[in-house]
Amino acid sequence: MSADAPGAQVVDAAVPRGTTVGDAVTQVDVDGTTTTQVDVDETTTGPTTTGPTTVPTSGGADGPARARVRAAYTRIREADRPEVWITLVPEADALAAADAVDARVAAGEDLPLAGRTLAVKDNVDVAGLPTTAGCPSYATDPAGRPGPAARTAPAVQALVDAGAVVLGKTNLDQFATGLVGTRSPYGAVRHATLPERVSGGSSSGSAVAVALGVADVGIGTDTAGSGRVPAAFHGLVGIKTTVGLVPTDGVVPACASYDVVTTFTRDLATGILATRLMVAAGRPGAGKAGAGPDAGPVAVGRRWPADVRVALRDVPVVAVPRAEDLAPLSDAWRAAFAAAVARVRAVGARTVEVDVSGMLAAARLLYDGAIVAERYAAVGDFLATGPADADPIVASIILAGAEVPAAAYVRDRLRLDAARAEAARTLAGCDVLLLPTTTEHPTIAAVQADPVGVNRRLGTYTNFVNMLDLAAVAVPAGEADGGPFGVTVLARACEDQLALDLAARLLGASGPEAAPDVPASAPLLVAGTVELLVVGAHLRGQPLQGQLADLGARFDRAVTTSDAYRLVALGTVPRKPGLVRVGPGEGAPIAGEVWRVSPGALGAFLAALPAPMTLGRVELADGTRVVGFGCTAEAGGSGTDITDAGGWLAALARGR
Amino acid sequence: MSADAPGAQVVDAAVPRGTTVGDAVTQVDVDGTTTTQVDVDETTTGPTTTGPTTVPTSGGADGPARARVRAAYTRIREADRPEVWITLVPEADALAAADAVDARVAAGEDLPLAGRTLAVKDNVDVAGLPTTAGCPSYATDPAGRPGPAARTAPAVQALVDAGAVVLGKTNLDQFATGLVGTRSPYGAVRHATLPERVSGGSSSGSAVAVALGVADVGIGTDTAGSGRVPAAFHGLVGIKTTVGLVPTDGVVPACASYDVVTTFTRDLATGILATRLMVAAGRPGAGKAGAGPDAGPVAVGRRWPADVRVALRDVPVVAVPRAEDLAPLSDAWRAAFAAAVARVRAVGARTVEVDVSGMLAAARLLYDGAIVAERYAAVGDFLATGPADADPIVASIILAGAEVPAAAYVRDRLRLDAARAEAARTLAGCDVLLLPTTTEHPTIAAVQADPVGVNRRLGTYTNFVNMLDLAAVAVPAGEADGGPFGVTVLARACEDQLALDLAARLLGASGPEAAPDVPASAPLLVAGTVELLVVGAHLRGQPLQGQLADLGARFDRAVTTSDAYRLVALGTVPRKPGLVRVGPGEGAPIAGEVWRVSPGALGAFLAALPAPMTLGRVELADGTRVVGFGCTAEAGGSGTDITDAGGWLAALARGR
Repeated sequence: MSADAPGAQVVDAAVPRGTTVGDAVTQVDVDGTTTTQVDVDETTTGPTTTGPTTVPTSGGADGPARARVRAAYTRIREADRPEVWITLVPEADALAAADAVDARVAAGEDLPLAGRTLAVKDNVDVAGLPTTAGCPSYATDPAGRPGPAARTAPAVQALVDAGAVVLGKTNLDQFATGLVGTRSPYGAVRHATLPERVSGGSSSGSAVAVALGVADVGIGTDTAGSGRVPAAFHGLVGIKTTVGLVPTDGVVPACASYDVVTTFTRDLATGILATRLMVAAGRPGAGKAGAGPDAGPVAVGRRWPADVRVALRDVPVVAVPRAEDLAPLSDAWRAAFAAAVARVRAVGARTVEVDVSGMLAAARLLYDGAIVAERYAAVGDFLATGPADADPIVASIILAGAEVPAAAYVRDRLRLDAARAEAARTLAGCDVLLLPTTTEHPTIAAVQADPVGVNRRLGTYTNFVNMLDLAAVAVPAGEADGGPFGVTVLARACEDQLALDLAARLLGASGPEAAPDVPASAPLLVAGTVELLVVGAHLRGQPLQGQLADLGARFDRAVTTSDAYRLVALGTVPRKPGLVRVGPGEGAPIAGEVWRVSPGALGAFLAALPAPMTLGRVELADGTRVVGFGCTAEAGGSGTDITDAGGWLAALARGR
Repeated sequence: MSADAPGAQVVDAAVPRGTTVGDAVTQVDVDGTTTTQVDVDETTTGPTTTGPTTVPTSGGADGPARARVRAAYTRIREADRPEVWITLVPEADALAAADAVDARVAAGEDLPLAGRTLAVKDNVDVAGLPTTAGCPSYATDPAGRPGPAARTAPAVQALVDAGAVVLGKTNLDQFATGLVGTRSPYGAVRHATLPERVSGGSSSGSAVAVALGVADVGIGTDTAGSGRVPAAFHGLVGIKTTVGLVPTDGVVPACASYDVVTTFTRDLATGILATRLMVAAGRPGAGKAGAGPDAGPVAVGRRWPADVRVALRDVPVVAVPRAEDLAPLSDAWRAAFAAAVARVRAVGARTVEVDVSGMLAAARLLYDGAIVAERYAAVGDFLATGPADADPIVASIILAGAEVPAAAYVRDRLRLDAARAEAARTLAGCDVLLLPTTTEHPTIAAVQADPVGVNRRLGTYTNFVNMLDLAAVAVPAGEADGGPFGVTVLARACEDQLALDLAARLLGASGPEAAPDVPASAPLLVAGTVELLVVGAHLRGQPLQGQLADLGARFDRAVTTSDAYRLVALGTVPRKPGLVRVGPGEGAPIAGEVWRVSPGALGAFLAALPAPMTLGRVELADGTRVVGFGCTAEAGGSGTDITDAGGWLAALARGR
């Protein structure tokens, strides 16, 4: 292979650093005819992760993004975990990207992820870098020829557009098949702080990069737990949205029907911010700007239902498994889960024991059933050619899918439909479900001794989730057996926000006493909500607040109106005030609350609203206008003026 | 076999009448061990379709339902089309059911289908009757043992609960595999009025029963056109809803992912009424009443999206195919389609030519691709036993599905995902799509000469529809080649109402001159809409009416308010009136319009509503209250009173 051969394209910045197994990297011609495995030591010419490097300096003082990126590379060298990376972006390139972000911010752009560092699982495309999926000989360009990806996956591009800087592509269980992190020719990924234990997988490298403090956001994929199990092992937040919300364009499929692009973060808010951007990448017309001239249309993602609930109610009903459903846990993990259930109650939820055995049984369809044929459909033809760098366990799992008849697959899909209906019945009346994320934290040696059996156990509480169309958020929940312990909050399809809200309560609480101070909710993931001002019986603690809670409305902020309003007490049951617009300066600021609701919830609320109440634009003290309560002129004119109280609660306190 | 053997259950009322091919019927023990084919002439003891029968009389004069059912049986005997029926309910039993309906009506029940007669395709369960799917040896009970069905399919039960009376189970292309109506051991079903031609299939018997005037509603199933092609051949309305809206419990699957229970009717309104009831059967908690003690839960159907559009706009954009997409049509049919396109324009629509070749190509995945494995998954194991009464063409098609690897099926599903996305782009900016329903109307002889080739051509414009998640309504569109010609209106998933609305315009129009008198819309299929009163700029013909049209709002009726309101002219741009509630008798009735909108559309409308307009309960002249327009007290107080005009249009006419 020669870099100056016609059409040849040498992949630079694509050399894995210090891989611990194999020590090989592929450099390939774009014509696809030549695949050359070469020894890393012979070809590495760029910076390494361990030695000092020469990096170009920016013209003046480091901007914030540049400083963050520079610190990330310092941390990479300090951590000395070469197996985390399959391709590391040269520091100079990343610094240049950071400089561009700093320049955009200096020019006034609002970049929510300015300078945040990204570690991208190597089954997700980043333009200019190969996508190996953990199998060096698999790296191909969009035309099926070996080479770097032409286009960044829209989900990642959305983060880059928001100011994030890609550090590199991370190691994984090959073809995202595994929950352990050991199934890779680039080496078994060791746990960030307990190196004799597994990192968890398949999104092993991204999780460890975040846990080590190298990356701010790790991009994973999760079909059966690959974004949740490594989160649990590392005390990270792992957000696995409902299938279809985040576009999977530019992702090597594992099971195309069930794959989700996920985030690992050390805090919940950053995870939600990144996930919100990734979901937006699936909206019609999204992803055009940064995608380049040859970008095809982004597959339009699943939309938030028009009546989606956008908040957990104050006293949510949390389903928890029965004791027998927890049998696979070690004693210490079972105790830790019991503590997590106690914490759920401490943060204000009501728990209800449900039988999740049907869900756990559905999990077995993923590998024991015909669904594994989806994995064969994705990469089976490639593995059938017998590539030397295929992981033998991964290859044996996926190649078994070749033998599956389509009718068996169809029947298993119908079984999943039935299991989904059963799960819906199980969860009826509950807002979310709490489960342990996985069963145990094995050593690398234990996995090597029983690679399939241990892996299977680890998926007990994760394998079924995507197949049953549930959303999931993995959150840390203390320690057990000498390492982090984690739980997962699950929610119905597109009710991701409810799981995030319980996760926020759990993360904000340190114990039963802390409950009153717990943050009520996480940042908002759902887009397209409408603001609604309430000033009376729908205020928190007032008799009709439950109407908003039932519609999944979300408290946003306390406000006052402009001084164009007067407040009157109406003769309704229950007692309500009426907000009457009288004109600028002719009233007084009236206290109220702004809630966020979906358009469908707003319509349902209006449809049920009794006379004499009305909804229309109300001006707030800051000059903005939101949809808010009023009343008919007839009612307003006959009510008792209570404007001087400044609000309904104050008026009630005065006995009005 | 003995009727008094332990557990034995003789199927009476289950004898096919005068079948023209085979003349055989199965009577089987419920233990499933014995399947006996016996000659019809030896076992028929009940009434026949051709001879006079003795029927018990009701106590007094015939009730309306009894009269309709009696007339239906008379018509059955007159028509002498024995191949239509696989199982005919004994007239005495049907009359008893009609008497029960008459009694319910006499007791004050409101039964929207009181006495309407039903012909049910014999792949849909009716309690007490066997379900053969066109293969006598297949008839089984729910435990897989031969015998009558224990439970009526919820979709049919919903019609029976509404007063419909089942006449019997109808012939079909075996296992709903075919579009011709000839593939049945019960005989080729002849066209109702052109007996040398095919009836179309697979829902052959149900279509002919309706076309003959025997049944008011024919129940079909439609996976690839089985509910549309026979409708086209008979000048009937065939409503094929979006996959998932009507529950398919109690239906022998053809392709479980794509099967839809459909209606044939002679008029659109009856079809919509029946379809609306069938969709409601899929709601949570539906179907409990009439289902009996051993009824499992009905699979919860797809819900109408909270923001579903519920009306076609006044000037809809109708996509039509390019000339090259119409190449499969005969010259006369091509001319008839051109006339239909002209009629679409004549009834007020704008047409846009689009390239539907991608959709037509997707059609080929149904039989040529791996999707046929779904048919194998449904009944392949049964056909693999080589039953003597299997139709050889049907068996060869379905058994081919045994050989399909799951990975090929998965890849074809992914191709369908891509085709669905492409179809969405093709239809962007269009409200609905108009296509010919099928390509030609062949003779039975022509089908027998080339059974697979002709059948394939017939599916050109229907095969892809369910796979691409589109709704469809087949409607008659004149005549061509000496028989009925039909077109199909297609709409996006869950926008069934838009297709029905264009169908209503087409059926109401007899030519370009008739356009002004065309009914604006069909009856409402969508449930859960909200009424919205408009009194000003959103009235028909006024400047903001387009806001309602964009949200898919549906004009319902002209109304006046109670006399508790005054109307004032506001100083807004565009000019708007404000409806001000002043109290009973203190105002005057004000003219307005009630529109129906989805809750999501109502919420979106409110979210965009500018000051000083408000929405709240408004009392109508009949004392009911609907959501309607008002304005703030401030604006109402400063406007010019125009109450004496009685409404905004009158005020405008007076120059106010």
